[in-house]
Amino acid sequence: MAETDTTSPRADGGVRSIARAVEMLELFDKEHPTRTLRELVTLTGLPKTTVVRLLATLDSLGLILDRGDSTYGLGAGFLRWVTLAQSLWEVSADTRQKMTQLVDTCGETVNLYIRQDLNRVSIAQVEGTTTVRSVVEVGVPYALASGAAAKILLTGASEAVIHNLVHTRPDLDFEHLMREVASIKEAGYSVTHGERELGASAVAAPIFSSDGRVIAALSASGPTSRFTADRVGRYVDAVTEAAASITAAGLGNVEVFL
Amino acid sequence: MAETDTTSPRADGGVRSIARAVEMLELFDKEHPTRTLRELVTLTGLPKTTVVRLLATLDSLGLILDRGDSTYGLGAGFLRWVTLAQSLWEVSADTRQKMTQLVDTCGETVNLYIRQDLNRVSIAQVEGTTTVRSVVEVGVPYALASGAAAKILLTGASEAVIHNLVHTRPDLDFEHLMREVASIKEAGYSVTHGERELGASAVAAPIFSSDGRVIAALSASGPTSRFTADRVGRYVDAVTEAAASITAAGLGNVEVFL
Repeated sequence: MAETDTTSPRADGGVRSIARAVEMLELFDKEHPTRTLRELVTLTGLPKTTVVRLLATLDSLGLILDRGDSTYGLGAGFLRWVTLAQSLWEVSADTRQKMTQLVDTCGETVNLYIRQDLNRVSIAQVEGTTTVRSVVEVGVPYALASGAAAKILLTGASEAVIHNLVHTRPDLDFEHLMREVASIKEAGYSVTHGERELGASAVAAPIFSSDGRVIAALSASGPTSRFTADRVGRYVDAVTEAAASITAAGLGNVEVFL
Repeated sequence: MAETDTTSPRADGGVRSIARAVEMLELFDKEHPTRTLRELVTLTGLPKTTVVRLLATLDSLGLILDRGDSTYGLGAGFLRWVTLAQSLWEVSADTRQKMTQLVDTCGETVNLYIRQDLNRVSIAQVEGTTTVRSVVEVGVPYALASGAAAKILLTGASEAVIHNLVHTRPDLDFEHLMREVASIKEAGYSVTHGERELGASAVAAPIFSSDGRVIAALSASGPTSRFTADRVGRYVDAVTEAAASITAAGLGNVEVFL
């Protein structure tokens, strides 16, 4: 977050300020509905003058509320997109109920990911029952290259997508990744440890459209210390069963977009 | 929308691309959940190369979904802010019910506006019952200088805000606006015809916080042809009564932010 990565598509030429604005807006969440100027400067790693200019721009667009005492909140301008984003991207109540049942079974945090270009995005989350949890934010794009859910989404992606992904990530080998994805597709689930983040593990399984395409990945994730050999079989069973059940009932409206 | 106005704060220096991105995202609404590249070029008035670059940036940030056939949708990345924006900015169910009753009484579209810096933003809307309606989008900042709701919000603003507003609008006179605002404050309501838009009229009244500050404006708006002399008295009664009723019950959570 602190420094703009010049290899990332976020830093692409004259539109870097858009990425910076979004990164700043991401700092507002339910734990931090307001932020001080000092926090924003520290967390973005940007010069204070840049942060002040970004805040003024976002204020004029209604996306930031200047509370007048060097504290800022998320602006009412987001209401422009709330209803539309919900109608497009929210999963059905039935899907959410099945995710909650999966949390009840395994205790871990459950996410439902979709692929957007070369990213994966959680569109629904039910938090686990334990205090040590894997923290992923709904709506935030994460790399498609690592983690169990990412691998499941790759089983539904074209060879061209995998090629583009490898192109942006010199540490990945195309042939190796293609083989791994083919194996995961055959197995019908994926288990990873420490791929996305050291000490974090996940189990994921595919959700299919009515015409048989992989459109989403259901995952249960948490600290590696709980994904032990004697438990992981149970996790795999629970996640694959829940994913099959969601596939059978359908994801809801969002499916038309996937 | 087409040309960036150099006197607008939206065009402020190196952050113009942020304003352009937001203007593009505003083109997606419930009537237009997807847009073609051609539409986006036409509606923004920007060169195709600029539109393509903006779309690619917004796609990488999860805010635009590239559907692969030169059509685009609103991205799942907005889910980052949906829950927070709702918890901060949604009015109470009781307030919404009172707005619906007002629509039932007068037939016109009812909005609840707040002030953000030098803009007014509707945070709640109940559409009128007739087919010819005043079209205002929830969440979109509109000028604070014109319209009945804007005038009501100015009755709760400091002299410094009115000074800043006049500074950005050479067509306004400070003394004149101060006198108008004082009169409206005394009257307790505002009626305007054609201020915001030719042929559009509105009646608005203030909503107060528990400590007596003007924190919002309730308005009923529609075509001037329906805001006739024999009806406007009834509209004023209905709007001021509904605003007083909302004040008495409280706006809900959003009040702590205002």
